[in-house]
Amino acid sequence: MHVLVIGAAGMIGRKLTQRLAADGALDGRKIAELTLTDIFEPTAPKGFGGKINIERSDLSRTGAAAALVAKRPDVIFNLAAVVSGEAEADFEKGYRINLDGGRSLFEAIRLENQKDGYRPRVVFCSSLAVFGPPFPKLIGDEFLTAPLTSYGTQKAIVEMLLADYSRRGFFDGVSIRLPTICIRPGKPNAAASGFFSNILREPLVGLEAILPVADTVRHWFASPRSAVGFLVHAAAIDLSYLGARRNLIMPGLSATVADEIEALRSFAGEKAVALIKRVPDERIIKIVDGWAEDYEPTLALSLGFRAESSFGEIIQAHVEDELEGRTA
Amino acid sequence: MHVLVIGAAGMIGRKLTQRLAADGALDGRKIAELTLTDIFEPTAPKGFGGKINIERSDLSRTGAAAALVAKRPDVIFNLAAVVSGEAEADFEKGYRINLDGGRSLFEAIRLENQKDGYRPRVVFCSSLAVFGPPFPKLIGDEFLTAPLTSYGTQKAIVEMLLADYSRRGFFDGVSIRLPTICIRPGKPNAAASGFFSNILREPLVGLEAILPVADTVRHWFASPRSAVGFLVHAAAIDLSYLGARRNLIMPGLSATVADEIEALRSFAGEKAVALIKRVPDERIIKIVDGWAEDYEPTLALSLGFRAESSFGEIIQAHVEDELEGRTA
Repeated sequence: MHVLVIGAAGMIGRKLTQRLAADGALDGRKIAELTLTDIFEPTAPKGFGGKINIERSDLSRTGAAAALVAKRPDVIFNLAAVVSGEAEADFEKGYRINLDGGRSLFEAIRLENQKDGYRPRVVFCSSLAVFGPPFPKLIGDEFLTAPLTSYGTQKAIVEMLLADYSRRGFFDGVSIRLPTICIRPGKPNAAASGFFSNILREPLVGLEAILPVADTVRHWFASPRSAVGFLVHAAAIDLSYLGARRNLIMPGLSATVADEIEALRSFAGEKAVALIKRVPDERIIKIVDGWAEDYEPTLALSLGFRAESSFGEIIQAHVEDELEGRTA
Repeated sequence: MHVLVIGAAGMIGRKLTQRLAADGALDGRKIAELTLTDIFEPTAPKGFGGKINIERSDLSRTGAAAALVAKRPDVIFNLAAVVSGEAEADFEKGYRINLDGGRSLFEAIRLENQKDGYRPRVVFCSSLAVFGPPFPKLIGDEFLTAPLTSYGTQKAIVEMLLADYSRRGFFDGVSIRLPTICIRPGKPNAAASGFFSNILREPLVGLEAILPVADTVRHWFASPRSAVGFLVHAAAIDLSYLGARRNLIMPGLSATVADEIEALRSFAGEKAVALIKRVPDERIIKIVDGWAEDYEPTLALSLGFRAESSFGEIIQAHVEDELEGRTA
């Protein structure tokens, strides 16, 4: 089979292509060809035996999606996006990349479908930003999508297009709404949610980290490994059971900052916990206050999607995947 | 003030412009100028004292929205749409008119807004087709939009754009999701929902009508007069209370076919009821079986939107508005 990964240069994209290369198969079928594309040139994964195509492309450019789809990939992962902060700062760019880019992919597939019934699996990486407050205690599969960001709006619109194009039979699509990814590898960054990862990742290697919010803050998490697992699972399962409702809240762990700290203590001891410095930041406190705390992903669980069930597992996954098992 | 009505040649559009002309004012302000546009040339309403502009235009054409918005209307009603059956039969046309047309209007307003803060009220005529089964017993303001038609998808997407553009301050928008309009004036038509109107409208003037479903079928109704009332009310009220949730289920009457027949009996007697011929139609029975029965429009009620509370009132409105008070 031929697998296309759009947005292959991003953090999840790199991990997904590495996993596909390592498995060499998807849904029990050998991956003969792998096409990786992004605005930046993606890196070829190690150890892949099949044919590999590396391409720079921007889906929002005329003809770009058609060129990718003309090669008739069996499975298409769309992970390409302008992130939340940028989509809010640059209105036109956010709509162009996140909405028009996503729609142009769907249109390119539809036009191929009209020729001879070509009907690939499409896995769209969506976000819990499709939801906006006020929230119920638990957000379920039937809660409305009323986002409070342009990014969330763009994701929700592409989700609706995906559901309609799937219903019409142009492709067989599913959207997966990822939890906050924790522990994000790399350096501390300016994202408001960064501290959730920073307070674990940095102390694990003996570095200080800033905690800008209270210990009682609760949020919804999954590891990068789980995120990749969701994508691979979404590419393989039978979706016909879902009917027209193709947009799924992914499972995650509802946990507090205190839960994170306790897991760090168990894993790396008091000296690691001592590296967390409490520096309240009113701006971040206010942003985080508008985020949902807990979800009830009934549909995804019924389809066999699984995430971590404790922060101990999340730390373990990070240490294995990023630190080759070693901590400070 | 200057009021722009897009889709002014349709049934609701004509009734809205007639109401605006008769009132001569909106939200307590005199209507100095009225611009009516549609793909077909709209008719000028009677008795309007201000300046009137009649224009043919297609919002999905480049420059059409910009030309309308350049005149800086204070209130914009967007009622233009390809109907459900046509949007399902012609995928490209439905998306072009219902999605791209709606979006081009919002973009044209945004570009004017960027110049000097121009910020009109926008009232978008949406539909309960944004919802799809399986339904709860009562559909509330927080129920997900998972449509089962391309028309419903297009309406839901424009709703999401309207909410985001309003949140960003480009205009002050609200979407109103109309109930099934009953009694529709005119001749019986091929729409699957046509019988709800036919079984009242035709007997009221001494003609036979076909009832293709069981008496127990329950649905959600408002009169054309109420639909116009919703639009006018939506143009006038303070929306800031809604925050980013700008898409409202309009109030209606949840009633059965049996309720319709009883109201007809009370109003026009047994001889009118005898004109209803029961001819079960499996195709229509199946379509109607997928429609929702009842709603809980809490937000709209809290904002003062009101519909009829009995089929007696709906018949009365029809006889006054369409038959000059006379029945067979």
